[in-house]
Formats: sequence, C-alpha cells, structure tokens
Amino acid sequence: MVSLRYLTLVAILIAVSVIADFSIGAQAAHPNLVITSEDVVKMRQGIAEKGRFADAFYVLKAKVDEQLALPIVVPVPKDGGGGYTHERHKKNYQLMFDAGMVYQLSEDTKYADYVRDMLLEYAKLYPTIDVHPKRKVKSQNPGKLFWQSLNEAVWLVYTIQAYDLIYDSLDTSHINTIEQNLLRPVALFLSEGQPSTFNKVHNHGTWATAGVGMAGYVMSEPEWVEKALYDLEKSGEGGFLKQLDELFSPQGYYNEGPYYQRYALMPFVTFAKAINNNEAHRNIFQHRDGVLLKAIDTTIQLSYNGLFYPINDAIKSKGIDTIELVHGVTVAYGLTEDPGFLDIAQQQNQIILSGDGLKVAQALDQGLAKPYQFRSVAFGDGSDGKQGALVIMRSQMGGEKAVLFKPAAQGLGHGHFDKLTWQFYDQGQEIVSDYGAARFLNVEAKFGGRYLPENKSYAKQTVAHNTVVVDETSHFGGDVEIGNQNAPTLNFFESNAFGSVSSGEINTAYPDVKLERTLALVNLSELETSIAIDLFSVEAEDKHQFDLPLHYLGQLIETNFKIAANTSVLSALGEKNGYQHLWLKGQGKPESGLAKVSWLNENGRFYTQSSLVTGDESFLFTQIGANDPNFNLRNEQSFIRRVTGKGQHQFISVLEPHGEYNPSKEFTLDASSKITDLRVTHQAKLTLVELQIAGLTYLVAIDKTDVSSSENSLNRSFSYQQKTFSLNGRLAVHVLNGQ
Amino acid sequence: MVSLRYLTLVAILIAVSVIADFSIGAQAAHPNLVITSEDVVKMRQGIAEKGRFADAFYVLKAKVDEQLALPIVVPVPKDGGGGYTHERHKKNYQLMFDAGMVYQLSEDTKYADYVRDMLLEYAKLYPTIDVHPKRKVKSQNPGKLFWQSLNEAVWLVYTIQAYDLIYDSLDTSHINTIEQNLLRPVALFLSEGQPSTFNKVHNHGTWATAGVGMAGYVMSEPEWVEKALYDLEKSGEGGFLKQLDELFSPQGYYNEGPYYQRYALMPFVTFAKAINNNEAHRNIFQHRDGVLLKAIDTTIQLSYNGLFYPINDAIKSKGIDTIELVHGVTVAYGLTEDPGFLDIAQQQNQIILSGDGLKVAQALDQGLAKPYQFRSVAFGDGSDGKQGALVIMRSQMGGEKAVLFKPAAQGLGHGHFDKLTWQFYDQGQEIVSDYGAARFLNVEAKFGGRYLPENKSYAKQTVAHNTVVVDETSHFGGDVEIGNQNAPTLNFFESNAFGSVSSGEINTAYPDVKLERTLALVNLSELETSIAIDLFSVEAEDKHQFDLPLHYLGQLIETNFKIAANTSVLSALGEKNGYQHLWLKGQGKPESGLAKVSWLNENGRFYTQSSLVTGDESFLFTQIGANDPNFNLRNEQSFIRRVTGKGQHQFISVLEPHGEYNPSKEFTLDASSKITDLRVTHQAKLTLVELQIAGLTYLVAIDKTDVSSSENSLNRSFSYQQKTFSLNGRLAVHVLNGQ
Repeated sequence: MVSLRYLTLVAILIAVSVIADFSIGAQAAHPNLVITSEDVVKMRQGIAEKGRFADAFYVLKAKVDEQLALPIVVPVPKDGGGGYTHERHKKNYQLMFDAGMVYQLSEDTKYADYVRDMLLEYAKLYPTIDVHPKRKVKSQNPGKLFWQSLNEAVWLVYTIQAYDLIYDSLDTSHINTIEQNLLRPVALFLSEGQPSTFNKVHNHGTWATAGVGMAGYVMSEPEWVEKALYDLEKSGEGGFLKQLDELFSPQGYYNEGPYYQRYALMPFVTFAKAINNNEAHRNIFQHRDGVLLKAIDTTIQLSYNGLFYPINDAIKSKGIDTIELVHGVTVAYGLTEDPGFLDIAQQQNQIILSGDGLKVAQALDQGLAKPYQFRSVAFGDGSDGKQGALVIMRSQMGGEKAVLFKPAAQGLGHGHFDKLTWQFYDQGQEIVSDYGAARFLNVEAKFGGRYLPENKSYAKQTVAHNTVVVDETSHFGGDVEIGNQNAPTLNFFESNAFGSVSSGEINTAYPDVKLERTLALVNLSELETSIAIDLFSVEAEDKHQFDLPLHYLGQLIETNFKIAANTSVLSALGEKNGYQHLWLKGQGKPESGLAKVSWLNENGRFYTQSSLVTGDESFLFTQIGANDPNFNLRNEQSFIRRVTGKGQHQFISVLEPHGEYNPSKEFTLDASSKITDLRVTHQAKLTLVELQIAGLTYLVAIDKTDVSSSENSLNRSFSYQQKTFSLNGRLAVHVLNGQ
Repeated sequence: MVSLRYLTLVAILIAVSVIADFSIGAQAAHPNLVITSEDVVKMRQGIAEKGRFADAFYVLKAKVDEQLALPIVVPVPKDGGGGYTHERHKKNYQLMFDAGMVYQLSEDTKYADYVRDMLLEYAKLYPTIDVHPKRKVKSQNPGKLFWQSLNEAVWLVYTIQAYDLIYDSLDTSHINTIEQNLLRPVALFLSEGQPSTFNKVHNHGTWATAGVGMAGYVMSEPEWVEKALYDLEKSGEGGFLKQLDELFSPQGYYNEGPYYQRYALMPFVTFAKAINNNEAHRNIFQHRDGVLLKAIDTTIQLSYNGLFYPINDAIKSKGIDTIELVHGVTVAYGLTEDPGFLDIAQQQNQIILSGDGLKVAQALDQGLAKPYQFRSVAFGDGSDGKQGALVIMRSQMGGEKAVLFKPAAQGLGHGHFDKLTWQFYDQGQEIVSDYGAARFLNVEAKFGGRYLPENKSYAKQTVAHNTVVVDETSHFGGDVEIGNQNAPTLNFFESNAFGSVSSGEINTAYPDVKLERTLALVNLSELETSIAIDLFSVEAEDKHQFDLPLHYLGQLIETNFKIAANTSVLSALGEKNGYQHLWLKGQGKPESGLAKVSWLNENGRFYTQSSLVTGDESFLFTQIGANDPNFNLRNEQSFIRRVTGKGQHQFISVLEPHGEYNPSKEFTLDASSKITDLRVTHQAKLTLVELQIAGLTYLVAIDKTDVSSSENSLNRSFSYQQKTFSLNGRLAVHVLNGQ
C-alpha cells in the first residue's frame, strides 16, 4: 500500500515543479514578498488538515466569496477620511489582497480573475485623476485615490502584494496595462512625485518606501529597492534603513508612543519580510542588533490588559489584537519560535495566512503556548536610547497593577506636552488616566474623523496630563519643535523584589524651572497590595504658580477636607492652554497633614490619593467640558493641586488601592483609606518614606545617588529611628513595627 | 461480588435510620425547612459523584474551613449599614448557615460545633443589648443586632435554618440556652415586638414572617406559623398569604419593580419551600394559580443582558445572578423541571446545596439546558393586575433590542414619579437610560450607604426620566401617597410579526392634564433592524410648559440644528423638582421638519432620535451634576424637548440604531442617520406613520381602537395614498416603494 506520506511528498514535488514552471520567463518569482512560493506549498497542505489554519482560510474564503458575488466598484475619489469613496478604496485593497491569497491557496482562477478585473478598473481610473479634491490646502502629501498620500502608500503595500499573488495568472497584455497605467504611476507618484514624504524619516515615509520597494521586487526594478532602502538619492540620509535606525530606540521603542508604534510596525514588518525573502544577504532582521524584533516585542510590552498605554495622540481602544501586531507577532514567532508569542497570538485570535501564520497556527493547535512575560522596564527613548525613557512598572500583588511614567521625549507631531506624567492601572482598568487623543476616528460629523480642534486645545496641553504645569502654561510653551529638541533625563530605573522605582527630570520644559519626579510602585507584602509613591519636586529661580493635576476615572467618594462646591454656576478654570476646557466644580484647602481624595473605579475598587501637605496646597476639582460647543470632549474628572507664589515645592503623595464595592453581591469592604500617617525625610541622596497603614509602619528607602559618572555605590547602610538598615540597590521596604 | 449499587443502598438505609434515630424524642424532624432529611440523603450521594454539585460542596467546604480556623467574632452592635459590626453580623449568619450545611453533608461534627459555639455567643450577647444605637430617629422598625429590623429578620431566616441543620448534634442544655436566650427572643422581637412591621403587606413583612414562621416549625410553635401566615391576630389581613395575594400581580409582577422583586423573592421562596416540606396540604406553590412560580419567571423576564431593568430605586448592577434568583430558579426547576430554567441556572453559575440544587446540578451535568425564552409581554400591575402595566418589547433584529415602557403603578415608597417613561436597549447596552437609585450601597462615606438625599431630590423626580413634565413639577406633585392611589391605564399591548406596540395613559399625574403615550418597536426587515416609534400626546385644559427629556448614554455626535452652547459659564436649569441638578449645556430650536440628535454608545453603535417638529420645540442639552456638593450624582447627559404656553402638544419621534464605530479595527460605518422623512397622519383611531429611511418608504399602521367595552373589531382595511391596506391587529408594517 502506498503510504499517505509518500503521496503527500509526491504532491509537494509536483506543486513545486508547477510553481517553478510558472516562474519560467518571469524575471522575478511570484509570489515572493511576504509569502514565497515555498510557503504556498506548505500553506496548501495546511488547509488540507483540520486546525486553526484551515479555519482561518475557510473564513477568509467565505468572506471573499460574498464579495465576489457583488459588482466591482472603483469610484472616482471624492470623500475625505471616513467618507464613502475613502472607505471603498480601503476595502478594495484589502479585498484584492484577500482574493489573491484565496487564489494561491485554492488555485481557483476565479479569484485571480476578480483581482485582475479590479486592477484593470483601477488602471482605467488612475490615469484620469489628479490630486484628491479633499486634500489639505498647500499639502506636501496629497494622494490621488485618497486625501493624503499615506493612505495611497498603504493601498500600494496591499495592492502590490495582491498583484504578486495573482501575477502568474495574468497574460502579458494585462500585465502591461496594470503595470504601466497603475502600479508604476502609483509607485512613481509616491517616490519621485513626493520626495519630501518618501525621504522623510517618519512612519509616512515607511509606508511609502515599503510600497515602492516591494513594487521594485515585483516589477524587477532593483533601483526602486535601492531608493526605498537609502532614499531617492541613495544617500542613506533617508529611506527604510535610516527609518529603522532613527525611528526606534535600541530597545525597539518608537518615538511617537505605542499607538503609532503598532501602526508604524506594519510596513516595517511587511517590507522586512519581503527583503528577507528576496535578498536574504541583507540580513534585515539582524539589522541594528535585531531592532525590528525588539520593536515587535516592545509593542506588546506597551500594553496593559490587552490595550496600549494611551500616551500621545492615541485612540484608547487600540490593543494587542490590532492587525498590525497580529502580523508582527506572526513574523516574530516565525523568526524565534518563542512560545510566549503564541500566548499573545492566542489572545489575538487571528491567524495570518502566510508561512509564518501556518507555523503559529500549527503551534497553537499543538498547545505550545507559554505565558508571555510582561516586565517592568524602562525603554530608552530616541534613536540613541538616551532621550529620556518610557518607564513601565508592574506588580501582580492584589491584582494586576501598572505604573506608566513618562520622562520620555516629545515624540514628534503626535507627542503631548506631558513631560514626567504618569498613569496608574489596576485590576484591568485605568485608574489615573491619560485622555489620549481627542478624535472620533473616521466619524465624518466629528471634524471629518480627523483630530478634533480640541486635540490641540486640550488633549495635547500639559494640564490634560498628570504632571506639573507652571503658571498655566504648557511645557515648551506648547511648541513641538522646542519639545523635540529637549528630552527629559531618566535618572534611574530599578526593579527588584520590593517593587520598582524610577526618577526623571527636565529643566527645559520651562525657563529656569527644574522638574524632578520620582515614582515607585512598592509591594506591601503584609497587606497583599502595592501602592504608588509619587515625589514631585519643582525648583524655580522666581516665584510661580505650580499645578499638579491628577485625572482619575471613577466617582468621587470622599475627601477628608472640606470642598467649597460650585453648585449653581460653573465657570471655566482658565482662558487658555487647556484650562479653558475645565469646569471648576469646587475647591478646598486642606490643613497641614494628609489630604485624602477617594474615588471608586468601575472595577469595583476604591482608590485614595493621600497627599502630604503643609497647608499651602489648594485642591481644585474639575470636569472636562468647558468651551466645547460641539460636545467633542469626554466629561472626565480631575483634581489639581495648586500652590501660588512659590519658588520651589514638593508634591508628595501616595496612591492606595483599597476595598471592594460589590452592589451585585451587596457588600462593600474597606471603602476608606487605611493610611494614617506619611512622613518623608532625606539623608543626602537617600529619601525615606515612612508610611503608617492598616496598623503597620513601613519604611520605604529610595536611593537617588547618581552613579553615572562617579564612583558612588548603591550599597550602603543607614540609620532611621536609632536602627540600622541596609540598602542594596535603589529601593527597599522595611516593616518598622507591627501593631 | 457485592455490587456498588447494593452497598450504596445499604448506606442509604443506614443513613435514613440514623436520621430517624436522631429525630426520636424531638417534636419536629430536623432538618425540615428548605432541606429535608430525605434531601440530605440524596445530597450526600450527590457529593460522592463527580459533577457540579460535588464541586459546589467542596468550594463551600473550603470556604467554611478557612473561617473555622479563625476565632468566632460576635461584636456588640455599633455600626450602621456597611460598617464593621453590621457586615460582621451579616457574615456570621451566612457562615452559620454554610457550616450547618457542611455538617449535614460531611457529617463532621466540628462544623456543627462551630455553629453551636457561635449561637452560644449570640445567646450571651442578645439578652444584653437594646435597640441599635444607629437606628433611625423615631423608627418603627429598629433592630438590635442591626440598625433596622429588616436585617434582623434576614438574620433569623438564615440562622433558624443553620440551627435546624445542626439541631440533632446539640444536647438539651445547649438547645435550651440557644432557644431561650436567642431564637425565641429574636422571633418575639420581630413579631409581637414590631406588629406594624410584621403585619405589614410589604417585603420587610415577608422577611419577618418567613423568619418567625420557620422558627415556629423548628421550635414546634404552630401558633407562630399561623401568625406568620395570617398576621398576629390571625385575621388574614396581613401575613405571608396576604403578602402573596397583594404584593404580586396575577402574572407575578411585584409592585416595586424588578430590583425589589428579586429581593422580595428570597423570603417568599424560602418560607414557601419550608411550608411545603412541613405542611404539604397547604399547597402553597399552587396558591393563587401558582403565583410564586410566576413571580420567579417574571423576575427573569424583567432582565436584559443579565441585568434587571433599573426602574424605581434600583441599583444598576443587579442581575439574574443575584443569589435570591439563584434560589428562585433552583426551586422553580425543582417544581417544574422546565429546561429553560437550566439555561438561566447555567448563566448564574452557582449551585445551591439543597434537594432542588442537586436536581439542577445533575440536569446541567447531563446537558439538559434549553434556551430560556425571553418574551415581549405586558405585566399587569397591582394585586388585581389592572393598575396599569410594565411593558417589555423585544426584538432580535440587528442585535438584541428591548423597549421598556412604564404605564405602571407608583410602586410604593421605592417608586419613581415616572409614569409612561421608557427605556431603550440594544446590543447589550442601555441606550435611552433610567438613572436608577442614587445610592452607593453600604459605602459609609456616601450617606452611610443608604439612599442619598439626591435620590429624592433627583432620581425619583419626573425630569430624571424619559416622560413628560408639566410646568417643571413632578407627577402627583411628588407625593407618593397620591401616586399609589392613581395608576395609569394600559390601553393596549400587542406583539406580532411586525413588532410590538403598546399604549398607555394617565390623567391624574397632573390636574386637568391627560398624558397618552404609544410606543412601538417595529421591525424593518429589509434593513435588518428595528426602530422605536414614540408618540406622546399631552392635552391640558390650560396653557402649560411641557418638557420631554431623553436621557441617553453615550457621546453626542451631531445635531442637524444649531446648538447655542454655554461654553464658559454653566447654570442649573431650574430651582427644584430635579431641575436644580441639571446643568444647561446648550439649547437650540430646530425649524419645522425632522430634528435629529445623534450619539455614540459604548457598544460602538450610533443612535439618532429624529423628532418631527413644527418649530415650536426647544431642545435643551443638559448634564446631571448641579447642586451636588458631595459629588454624589453620575454626570450623565440628556436633552429635553420643551414647548411653552401650550394647551396640547404631540411629541413625535423615532429612535434609529445605525452604523458602527470601531476604532480598534479602524472603520466607521453609517455614522449618520438614514431617516429622510417622517409623517404622521390619523384616520379616526388609526395612526399612520410614514417613514423614509435608506431609500425605502415604510408605512407603519397602529390601530388604537378601544375594544374593551364595545364591539369594535381590530380587523379592518384602510386607504393610504390611493392604496388599500389590511390590518389584522394593532400593528402592521408595509413597504410603500423600494428605490
């Protein structure tokens, strides 16, 4: 009896020889971008077996079949983002890509014919259109099919792959028509036609270089590849490699933050995979010590409970299941076979139809996933990793907690004026929050779906974040250029058994003002929880007003000081720099001691911010929504600690998660804060925080010694209340006495 | 070989005989309340087999074991709701009940001893305490262990069962101590000691009668049972049976609404089960045509997406997994073996350790669950079912939708002044919302965890609901007594293939003003969605101001008329009756035609309310939160349609779900309403709504003919635009023309 394995082998050999035949006469093999003809052979086997890969194929095929029954629609470009023609052209490139894939796997030419026919429609349309009617005035980067060339580049990235997938089914005249009237003009429009975008070291440039470079591989234009890699002049000043060098830090952190990092990832991963398949000798995945793989991993690290940290211009519902990261994780697993990536792939619950996708699907089918390890880590910012850092501290104690601390660089045009801001997460929810971007993506009625005016007037402004505002003016006077030139310094970051601690500073956010913040996520093992300690020091040459807002998500439960509430009339807190968007709901000036503000988050837990005050801080309770005639802003809450006429000030506070509100099961536990005392003292570079909580007295020691340029050591002993303690590292926690 | 079955049988016989032995000399068998000794035999078998029942037992045992390791704490009563002693005593009765159950099933006397020791502690404490220090001033119903006797009655319901479960393990002296110093005094305090509560036809009375009645069974006091059933004078004017007759409608709807219905259910179900086990001849479950079973089923029907409709004083997170309904569903399945109850039991995911619980667990183990059928239904209100009705309309078209319409009675002290209000639900979320109760249950800092002052000043007021307010005054002048005496009329309700329609009216909410509302949830099959049509007619003798608020959950997206927004200063909309709590954010006065307001709900769908106006309606956009010095209210949004100086007015509108906002997958579909025209005409009692939407023209016919007392028939034909249509019933939908 002839074994099944033997038959399969024969089938493979026949398939390979058929593919080889198809390639005869063509200058390039097809397909050979993200997916190679060798991949296709294995993938066809994959869909013949039961499992995730076959499931994914049949789901896609059903979706494509549905579309194939409908007429091809290639409308004359008319609408902006979110509008009909915009969305239709987006749908078309995805559809061509999907149908091309189904063709390769099913070998049914009707799918190839559909793609061909749509390409021919585009080839008819494209020569007749000029730049898009909805382009921005004086825009450097208009598209033709879309209002901006960014979408056009994305269109090319998908379409060139679709073309590559069906190439072998086309006759010469169609190849000529499609290449001459469509693909070449698009590639030229996006490269020679827009040098400033193509050469730009920016994610728009990455899409353009990826599209044009891949077109070069498919249409046998090695010069296009060279230009895509090294810029139009092949100078190396721009292009894909420069983008890899400049846009990521050595650890793979992308300057604009996670929301744009996952977006930027897609063309990087796609083009890199195509480069690797066509010119393995370029060792693209080894470039810069494997920065691309690090970038994929870092994108995962920059998430909490499946969602990306929403710093800068981020839309808050984006998370690790975003298609860009599905591609990223698929490629990363293909390269590394690290089972932690399978954990993420499992959560993403989407299988990519590619050679790597097959590997992921089969590994998941075999149950090879291992828990992905989220870490506490400081991601150095900037291409040299020294433009400050984005710090993530994590703890599993009493529910999954995270502190995000941002002594990071401005992050180009999508950056916010939020130096040294922070966020706190617990039990799956944002507790101390970041507004993210003011934008309703693609909702035409909301400013055409673009960034709202309030993105600039509120969301980017310093007061919209959890960091110090001097004299009601945003960092760098709200000037992006100045921001881009002046990053904060990460003084230190350390994570050990006691928790994590980090410190950063900046003296360029305001003239003659130094801002220094130290944040720690500290494990109180005896109480089975972690707390956050926040020490913010402001030093100025002259007297100023210092505001430290804390934006919280939840319902205010209590304060231990009186709030004079504005009950019948509300006014905006200020005139500009974001203050015009805050209603002042009330204010109070707590006496010397601990000033507490408690709120209840929708996760059912209470949170209390206890601030150590000396009677000079006012607490202003605000709600977002003033000067918002189009109801564009979310009406979230914050309180702002304010001191006036000060040359220097220490904002000292502790954030304490406590208790549970469970109206469904009808119980409430520990609705009140358990912190009874807080003292902060200093011994040279040592900061000692004494905390009485739930009858225990904790001593938290933070060593701020500068070890960068001296022979200072972090190992030391110190005395406190006539006792001697040792400190090996930056952070230690001691229990001084039980009750 | 002796078979396992034979051994099991022997074990049962031994067990039965042991139990019988234990009972010798006692006047009553133990246990014999919700659980009988026969149940126990089967339950012991149940835990010996793998499955949900054994799982539930071992989870409970582990929980109890954890507590047994800790000292018994029976503190002197001191704190109000949510405070330490309050919560501790609540925890104790649950713990005694649980430990008693584990004793019966494990037959390990250490559990019985634990319950005994705790009961002895209570027996020491109880004679030493007077009424609770935190009782309300001049309260008719203070507790001793708790601030109100309601909690004390609940304590007794659990504790008497715990006592019954361990009775057979006790020696005579302990029995004497526990009964004389604790159980008898508590039962007497709750009956003779508080006649007004005990005799009251109210859920507080049900808990008291249940506790005292069960104590009667356990301590062989048949007189207590009689008093529990027929009131202290055995007159039948009060007591458990009267409560069954009065508190539920014939369909099993509880006057105070679902939140209190599920709460009231517990003592009804518990005591009824005990009555049935002790005196089967009373046929308690057949009482009033099986009203108790109907009440359990109705409680399920009064939920959407697992949560109860939050009318009246409801806390919004309560749902079908509430322990009271777990007990209810368990008993209902035990009585009926209806597999639909298993569907709910599966969602509840909690197995009760009882004879019925064993049945549920085994049936679930065998996979017998069938989908529970949620219906469109009008629940007649009041003990005769004729005090108006609570109407639920449901549709599965384009996602699970529901309309709640409330031409229902006031609902006693927990009722809101919300005659004819409505709510809309879609895709799992509340869209047109009800505030529910203003209360943070058991959160001491929030008014001791009780109903907040804002519950009365805002949440109960008419303007907090989606119904007409005349002259900024609440229904019945905000007087509960008047409200209780004046229910609306349900004119009709019908559900057919076209959708559901209902109409109700009331002419006593305001002097000389008649309010009539017709609501329909209409299927537009061609568009694969349902829409809600709202026709609200107000007729008065004099000229008034009429306000119709619509409270929506989501972010305002657009209006098709100009809003003059109050951008730099906000003022409260009014002075009293809830208006003082609304900030006026802006207003507009749309011209004659369709006035549209669109918002985006967190379910990712857009909703547009299109109102047919003649230029006389102003739209006031409000946010809750004015005059709220303690930040007690949620800051939700609404718009109020207002006409002034009117003797009569028709508020006509359509609510249209549309599109999808998916920022995660980066697409937005149909963000704008598709309704282009709306016309309403009348032919005698026939209302014809012509609706142009997405290129289709629909004609919705609603027949309002009064058929109650005449020979009018609902079957008729009518002409519209020279065409003849037939109408069999109250509602029909025709497509006049496609495009």
